[in-house]
Amino acid sequence: MSILSKEIISQKLQSIQAYIISQIEKCDGKGIFIKDSWIRLEGGGGDTCILQNGNALEKAGVNFSAVYGELPVQIAKEFGVNEKSEFFATGVSVVMHPFNPFVPIIHMNIRYFEMGEGVYWFGGGIDLTPHYVDKQQANYFHSELKKVCDNFDKSYYATFKKEADNYFFNKHRDETRGVGGIFFDRLVENKNNTKKQIFDFLAAIGEFMPQIYTHLIGEKRNEVFTEQNKMWQMMRRGRYVEFNLVYDRGTKFGLETSGRIESILMSLPPQANWEYNHKPKLNSKEWQTLELLKKDIDWINI
Amino acid sequence: MSILSKEIISQKLQSIQAYIISQIEKCDGKGIFIKDSWIRLEGGGGDTCILQNGNALEKAGVNFSAVYGELPVQIAKEFGVNEKSEFFATGVSVVMHPFNPFVPIIHMNIRYFEMGEGVYWFGGGIDLTPHYVDKQQANYFHSELKKVCDNFDKSYYATFKKEADNYFFNKHRDETRGVGGIFFDRLVENKNNTKKQIFDFLAAIGEFMPQIYTHLIGEKRNEVFTEQNKMWQMMRRGRYVEFNLVYDRGTKFGLETSGRIESILMSLPPQANWEYNHKPKLNSKEWQTLELLKKDIDWINI
Repeated sequence: MSILSKEIISQKLQSIQAYIISQIEKCDGKGIFIKDSWIRLEGGGGDTCILQNGNALEKAGVNFSAVYGELPVQIAKEFGVNEKSEFFATGVSVVMHPFNPFVPIIHMNIRYFEMGEGVYWFGGGIDLTPHYVDKQQANYFHSELKKVCDNFDKSYYATFKKEADNYFFNKHRDETRGVGGIFFDRLVENKNNTKKQIFDFLAAIGEFMPQIYTHLIGEKRNEVFTEQNKMWQMMRRGRYVEFNLVYDRGTKFGLETSGRIESILMSLPPQANWEYNHKPKLNSKEWQTLELLKKDIDWINI
Repeated sequence: MSILSKEIISQKLQSIQAYIISQIEKCDGKGIFIKDSWIRLEGGGGDTCILQNGNALEKAGVNFSAVYGELPVQIAKEFGVNEKSEFFATGVSVVMHPFNPFVPIIHMNIRYFEMGEGVYWFGGGIDLTPHYVDKQQANYFHSELKKVCDNFDKSYYATFKKEADNYFFNKHRDETRGVGGIFFDRLVENKNNTKKQIFDFLAAIGEFMPQIYTHLIGEKRNEVFTEQNKMWQMMRRGRYVEFNLVYDRGTKFGLETSGRIESILMSLPPQANWEYNHKPKLNSKEWQTLELLKKDIDWINI
C-alpha cells in the first residue's frame, strides 16, 4: 500500500495552484487572480482563480478541484466499470491568453483519479500554442521540458511528446493546435516508478509551468505588433476555441457530466475571430506559422 | 414512383440560393456575396457564397451543395445501412450575423438525402437567435412562420417548433440558442403529403427566410446601441459558437466526414467573446433576454 493518500495529493495540488498564481501575478505586475470557490452538490468542489485584463495577460485561469462521491454514469460507462463505485478526482488546470500576439498561449493540467479497491491513475500535460511560431522559443520550451521529464524517466519526454502531437490536433484543419509539449494519461506505478515518483513528476510539471511561461512572457511581452498581428492572434484563438469545444476530452467530459461550466470554459479566450477562408500570403510570418503546425517536428534538434 | 427527381430538387435549391442572395444583397445595400465553388473529389461539390462587411450584415453565408458517391463509412454507420450504398445529398444552408446587436442572427437549412432503392428523406429548419430578445419580433417571426407551415400541414408548426426548442439548446448552459423556430428531419411522403408537397414546404421555408429577415433587419438596423450592447452581442455570439461546435449535427457530421471545412464553419461569427462568469444585472435588458431563452415559450400567444 502506498502512503501517498488522496488527501496529500490534493493538498500538494492546492499548493501548486498557489505557487502558479503567485509567480504569474508577480510576472504580470498588474493582474490579480480572483478566487471563485464552488461546491459540488454530490461531493467536493473547487477554487477557480481567474485573472482578467492584466499587463501581459488578458485572461488567465488557474483552477483547482477535488470532487468525489458516486461515479457519474457517463464516467462509469467510459471507464467500463461498475456504476456504483465511489470515486475521487483532483487536479489543477491552467490556460493563459496573453495580450501580445507574440507571447504564446499556454495550457497545463495535472490530475489524479481514484476508485475503490486501489485503482488509481495520473494524467496531465503541458503545451504551448504560439500565435506566431518562434522556433527558438519552441526549442527552448521543449528542451527545458525534456530536462524536467528526464529527471524522472528517460522515456517520458519522447513518449509523451508524441502523445501531445496526436492529442493537441485540430483534425478538421489538419494542423496541430500549437507546438505541442507533453500529454499523458492513466499513468500508474510500474517497475520503474513508484506512485510517489509519478506524483513528483506531476508536481514538477506544475512548477515548471510558471517558470517557463514567465520566461517566455519576458522575452516577448514588449515586442511591437501591428493591427494585422492582432487579427491573426484572434484567428488563432478561434482555432483554440475549435479544439477545446470539438476535441478536448476534459471539456467534452465536463459538458456531458454537467461539471461547473464557467470553470470548464475558462479556457476559452476573451475574444476570438473567424474570417472565411483566410489564407496567409506565401512566405509571410502567418504562412510560416502554419507550415510549423505539424506533428512530429523535433523541436529540440530543429 | 415520384417524378420529383434529385436533379429537379437540386436545381430548385440552387434557384432558392440565388433568390436569397438577391434579396439579402438588396436589403443590405452594400455587401456582395462572393461565390466560392468547390469540388468534392468523391463526387459533387458546392457553391459557398459569403458576404463580409456589408451595411447591415457583418458576415453572411448562403451555401449550396450537391454531393454524391459511395456512402461514407461514418454516415452508413449512423444510418445503420450497408456501407456500399450510393447516396446523393443536396441542400441550402444559411447563417447571417448582423452588425447591430438588436438585429437577430438567423439560420436556415433545407436538405434532401437519397439512397438507392427509393430511400430518401427531407430535413431542415429555420431559427432566430436575437442577442436581445424582442417579444414583438419573436412573436412576428413565429406567427409568420406558422402561416407558412399551415399552408402545407396544420400539424407542422406545433410539431417542428417543439423539435426546434429541443434541438437548438445549449444543454451545458441550460438555455435555448435563441427564440427557436422549426426543426425537422427524415420527412417522407405519407398519407397526408406527397414527396412533392414536402419539397414545396421546404422551398417555401427557403423563400420565407429572406422575406422575414429583411423585415426584421429593416425594423432594427438603425437602432442606436452602446459599447455595452456590442459586448453583450459578442458574448451571445460566443454561445452561438458553443452550440455550433458542441451540438450542431451538421457541423459535427461535416467535421467527422471531412467535408469542406470553410463551408461548414462559415456559420461561426466574425468575432465572439467570452467573459468569465458574466452575470447580467437583475432586470437589465440582458437579464430579461436570459429569462426568455427557455424551451416551450408560446411566442404566438405571448
